[in-house]
Amino acid sequence: MTAAAIVVDAFVFDAYGTLFDVHSVAAAADRLFPGRGEALSRLWRAKQLEYTWLTSLMAGAGDAAAATRPDFATVTAQALDYALAAQGLVLGADGRATLQAAYLALSVFPDVPAALSALAPRPRWILSNGTQAMLAPLVRHAGLEHHLAGVLSVDTVDVYKPSPRVYQLALDRLGIPAARIGFVSSNCWDAIGAKAFGFRVFWINRTGAPVDRHGPPPDHVIGTLADLPPLLRE
Amino acid sequence: MTAAAIVVDAFVFDAYGTLFDVHSVAAAADRLFPGRGEALSRLWRAKQLEYTWLTSLMAGAGDAAAATRPDFATVTAQALDYALAAQGLVLGADGRATLQAAYLALSVFPDVPAALSALAPRPRWILSNGTQAMLAPLVRHAGLEHHLAGVLSVDTVDVYKPSPRVYQLALDRLGIPAARIGFVSSNCWDAIGAKAFGFRVFWINRTGAPVDRHGPPPDHVIGTLADLPPLLRE
Repeated sequence: MTAAAIVVDAFVFDAYGTLFDVHSVAAAADRLFPGRGEALSRLWRAKQLEYTWLTSLMAGAGDAAAATRPDFATVTAQALDYALAAQGLVLGADGRATLQAAYLALSVFPDVPAALSALAPRPRWILSNGTQAMLAPLVRHAGLEHHLAGVLSVDTVDVYKPSPRVYQLALDRLGIPAARIGFVSSNCWDAIGAKAFGFRVFWINRTGAPVDRHGPPPDHVIGTLADLPPLLRE
Repeated sequence: MTAAAIVVDAFVFDAYGTLFDVHSVAAAADRLFPGRGEALSRLWRAKQLEYTWLTSLMAGAGDAAAATRPDFATVTAQALDYALAAQGLVLGADGRATLQAAYLALSVFPDVPAALSALAPRPRWILSNGTQAMLAPLVRHAGLEHHLAGVLSVDTVDVYKPSPRVYQLALDRLGIPAARIGFVSSNCWDAIGAKAFGFRVFWINRTGAPVDRHGPPPDHVIGTLADLPPLLRE
């Protein structure tokens, strides 16, 4: 191969699904509802994302008269309520607290720490829909603090991804042109939003899913984060 | 029951899923892919909605520097491409044209014409994500022209539902306060968006789904459109 060299001055990572396995809550859910944990976890996650998009639009993203969107902790709790109802499951306050706490201690994907190390000394950041209050314990629990320059959250804007105003947060903070920022996400819709914004985008397609069709495709498709560092040496 | 009388001066209906059965394309899909039509239709619809939300956000809804969102015909074609790929199905240009044409001739739900008649003489409108070019043949094919005062489309705004700027189209055109407009949708997320905007909302819950949790619940939940006229006489 004689591909042109990839020039990336800094990396920005999505958190949920990319560095952290959102479906690690399935184990906790399965202890509460034996045999039902995985289905509950999948529906919970699907609704959580749907609610970020819907509440962003309902808040009139960007309009002068914008309402306030609910934060990610609220949306996550609402999505859990829906998923429980849709599956006909009843859960008390203790069980809910258990599942919501599991969201603050998600497993890190096994390939993440070594890959983050291999990308040094380039600055590495998180840019996430999560609140700082949700993300800080997550990073700490996974022992990733020393791999990261910092964590950027949508807390400071009234909208969720894939609004360009979210991706702009990284540009503003890093002071590097978008085309020289490597944006890494396992969420195809996030990868496409980031590509439309102008980043160099790496989509981690862990499940062999088809690429989404509603915007420009990611620049690179990799199977795990471990595939990223070798790309930069080609 | 001693419920207070419901005062509605005009009705606004969602089109896809509410008056017209989006899954009537499953029959055409099943002729192309025997036994696979229903699954293809479900995924096609789910992605179509997802792409309306994502492209609205990517277009920076409301931002001064907003990009242009793709129209509903484009989003529908993109969603079909994704659904085919996800199901491992290959379809040529003729087959695609067949399925896209099926979208212009969706079945009307059987309870719709009589219910629309029963709601007269109140003005009855459609407010839809569809383009006028998609909606006109649909209304004509179903023979609903004489039941409707007109069709409002998101063509004139750069965003899809549930942005308040879409619901505002009805307010601007009808010149009636939102609380005296009855908004009818089978799509719970649309019903919730319309309720947040201020309409009196009737959610047609044809499938016994749980209510979504990310915003104010609809005022009324009915099983079919036939349940609506009797509510007004109580």
